[in-house]
Amino acid sequence: MKKKTLIVCGIDIGGTNTVFGLIDLKGNILYKDSFSTNANDSPESYIGQLSRKILSETQKRKDEFKLVGIGIGAPNGNYYTGEMIDPPNFSWGTIPLAEMISSKLGVPCALTNDANAAALGEMKFGAAKEMKDFAVITLGTGLGSGLVVNQKVVYGKNGHAGELGHCIVKKNGRKCSCGLKGCLEAYVSASGILRTVKHYLKREPSSLLSEVPRDELCSKDIYVAALQGDKIAQKAFLETGEILGEFLATTVCHFHPEAIFLLGGLTNAGELLFDPVIEAMERNLLSVFKGQVTVIPSGLPGADSAILGAGALAWDAFKK
Amino acid sequence: MKKKTLIVCGIDIGGTNTVFGLIDLKGNILYKDSFSTNANDSPESYIGQLSRKILSETQKRKDEFKLVGIGIGAPNGNYYTGEMIDPPNFSWGTIPLAEMISSKLGVPCALTNDANAAALGEMKFGAAKEMKDFAVITLGTGLGSGLVVNQKVVYGKNGHAGELGHCIVKKNGRKCSCGLKGCLEAYVSASGILRTVKHYLKREPSSLLSEVPRDELCSKDIYVAALQGDKIAQKAFLETGEILGEFLATTVCHFHPEAIFLLGGLTNAGELLFDPVIEAMERNLLSVFKGQVTVIPSGLPGADSAILGAGALAWDAFKK
Repeated sequence: MKKKTLIVCGIDIGGTNTVFGLIDLKGNILYKDSFSTNANDSPESYIGQLSRKILSETQKRKDEFKLVGIGIGAPNGNYYTGEMIDPPNFSWGTIPLAEMISSKLGVPCALTNDANAAALGEMKFGAAKEMKDFAVITLGTGLGSGLVVNQKVVYGKNGHAGELGHCIVKKNGRKCSCGLKGCLEAYVSASGILRTVKHYLKREPSSLLSEVPRDELCSKDIYVAALQGDKIAQKAFLETGEILGEFLATTVCHFHPEAIFLLGGLTNAGELLFDPVIEAMERNLLSVFKGQVTVIPSGLPGADSAILGAGALAWDAFKK
Repeated sequence: MKKKTLIVCGIDIGGTNTVFGLIDLKGNILYKDSFSTNANDSPESYIGQLSRKILSETQKRKDEFKLVGIGIGAPNGNYYTGEMIDPPNFSWGTIPLAEMISSKLGVPCALTNDANAAALGEMKFGAAKEMKDFAVITLGTGLGSGLVVNQKVVYGKNGHAGELGHCIVKKNGRKCSCGLKGCLEAYVSASGILRTVKHYLKREPSSLLSEVPRDELCSKDIYVAALQGDKIAQKAFLETGEILGEFLATTVCHFHPEAIFLLGGLTNAGELLFDPVIEAMERNLLSVFKGQVTVIPSGLPGADSAILGAGALAWDAFKK
C-alpha cells in the first residue's frame, strides 16, 4: 500500500471570515476555502459547519492524504487551555474550541491567537526559518504580537504573554477599548491611526481626507492621501511609526530579536510606515543594539499567511 | 577509591571586590573568600591572583572534591563570547576573560553579566526553582536585569538581551551614562534615586537629608530619612517605585512572568520601595494579568547570592 502524505488543517477564525487550508509539511496548500463566520450564530452551529466542510475535503482525498491534526489561530485563543476566551465581536463567550473541533474531526487540535500563529508560520514557512529570536507585530484593527525566544513562542504563565498592544506608551493617554489609558494599540493600529487623523482634521480641515465622510474613513484612505502628498495623512503615518519605533526599542532591550516582522493592513503603506518606525527605534537604542535588528514585512504571502501560521501550529504540536 | 564530590567555582567580579566560592550541586558553599579587585591593575595580574587563590583551595581539597567548571558573573560579561566587554569602572578594555581563566585553571569557564547570573542562581538554588518564566531586576548603582523564559536565560541575538535599564521611560528625560535620555536606570537605581532627592532638595531644603553633605549622600541615607518621616525621602521612594512599577507592566505584557525578583541595595528599603512598585504595576496591567505576578525580594541570602548565581551558571553549562 502506498504511504499516505501527512497533512494538517490550518484554520484562521476572524470576526468576519473563516479561512481554512489543508497543508503539507513543506507549507504547500493543497486546498483552501473560506466562509462567513457569522459570529452571532451559536458556536455549535458554527463548529458543525466548519467541521463538515473540512471532513468533506479530507474524505475526498483519503486515499492519498492523512489528516494528523488541526491548528487554529483565533482572537483570544489560549494555547494552554484550548479555549477561545470571550473574544470581542463574538457573542460566544468562552468556549473550549480546540476540544469541540477535535471531537468532531477525531484528530488533535491546537489553538492560539492569530499573532502567535503568524509567528509560528514565519518560523516554519516564512522568513524566520533560521532565526532563534524574533517578534511579529500584527497591525489590524488592533495591535497583536507574537514573540519567539530560543525558537519557542512565548506564552508566559497562562498563555497571554505577548500582549504588546496593551503596553502603556502615553501616561493618561487615549482611552483604549481594554479600559486602560494610553495603550500602544490606541495609537498604532488601523483604528489608532484613524483617531490620529480625526484629531488633526478637527484642527486643520484642509485635507484630502476631509472629503471622505468621517464614519467611512479607513486606513487605506489615509495611505492613499499620504501618497498624494496630503500633509495630515503624512503626519499621521509619521507619528504612528514613531510611537511604534520608540516602543520597539523597549522590546529590543527585553530580548534582542534578530528581526521584527510587521504584518497586517497598515503595512501596505510601506516606507510611509516602516521608515519612521526604524528611525525612531534606532534613535532610542543602546549602542550595542543599534543596526542589529531588521524591521521587515512578513516573508509569507499575505493572503495565505494566517492559515499557514495555523498549519505551522498544528505541525509544531502534533508532528512527533 | 572513594568517589569525589563534584564542585564548581562561582566568581562575582565587582568594581570594588571580587568574591568567589566553591559550591556543590546542592548550592552548599564549601569555601568562600574575597579580595580587592584593583580594577586598575592589568587583567593578567588580576587573573593570576584570582587563579592562585582558587587553585590553592582546590588543591587542599583534591582528595575529596573535583572542580568541574568555573562560572563568572561580571559587568558586561558576554555569555556567547566569554568576553568582558569594556566594562565601566575598569581600565581593562575588552578581554577574553572566560578563556583566560579556563587556561589558568584547566577547566571550562562560563561568563555572563551579574544580573543573568542572579537569575540563574534564583532558578537553581533560590525562590524560582519551580518557575518557567521570571525576571530578576538588580537595583545597584545601575539597573541590571536577567529574564528567564521557558526556563532559559534570554540572551538574544548576541548576548546583550535583558538590558532593561536602558529602556526609555521618559522622552527627553534625564541624561543617562549610556548617552541616551530618559533611561529607566537614570531614575530607578541607587544613583537615580539620589538624583531625584538632589532635585527636590534644591527646591525644598527643609529635609533631614539637607544635613548630609551632597557628595556623601547615599541611598541608605534616603531610606533612613524616609523611615524617620522625611517627606522628600518618602516622595523619592514613591516616585522611584512608581516609575519601576509602570515599566514592569510593559515587561509583563512581553512575557508574563510568574514573579519579578527585586535585588540589590535599594531593596533594603522594603515596602517603601515594593509597595509603590506593585501598586503602579497593577494599575497599568491588562485585566488578564492583574494579580498574577508576584514582585518579591530574592530567595537567596543577600551576601551569597552573587557567587551562588555564578555557581549556578557553571552547573548549568558544564554538568552533563
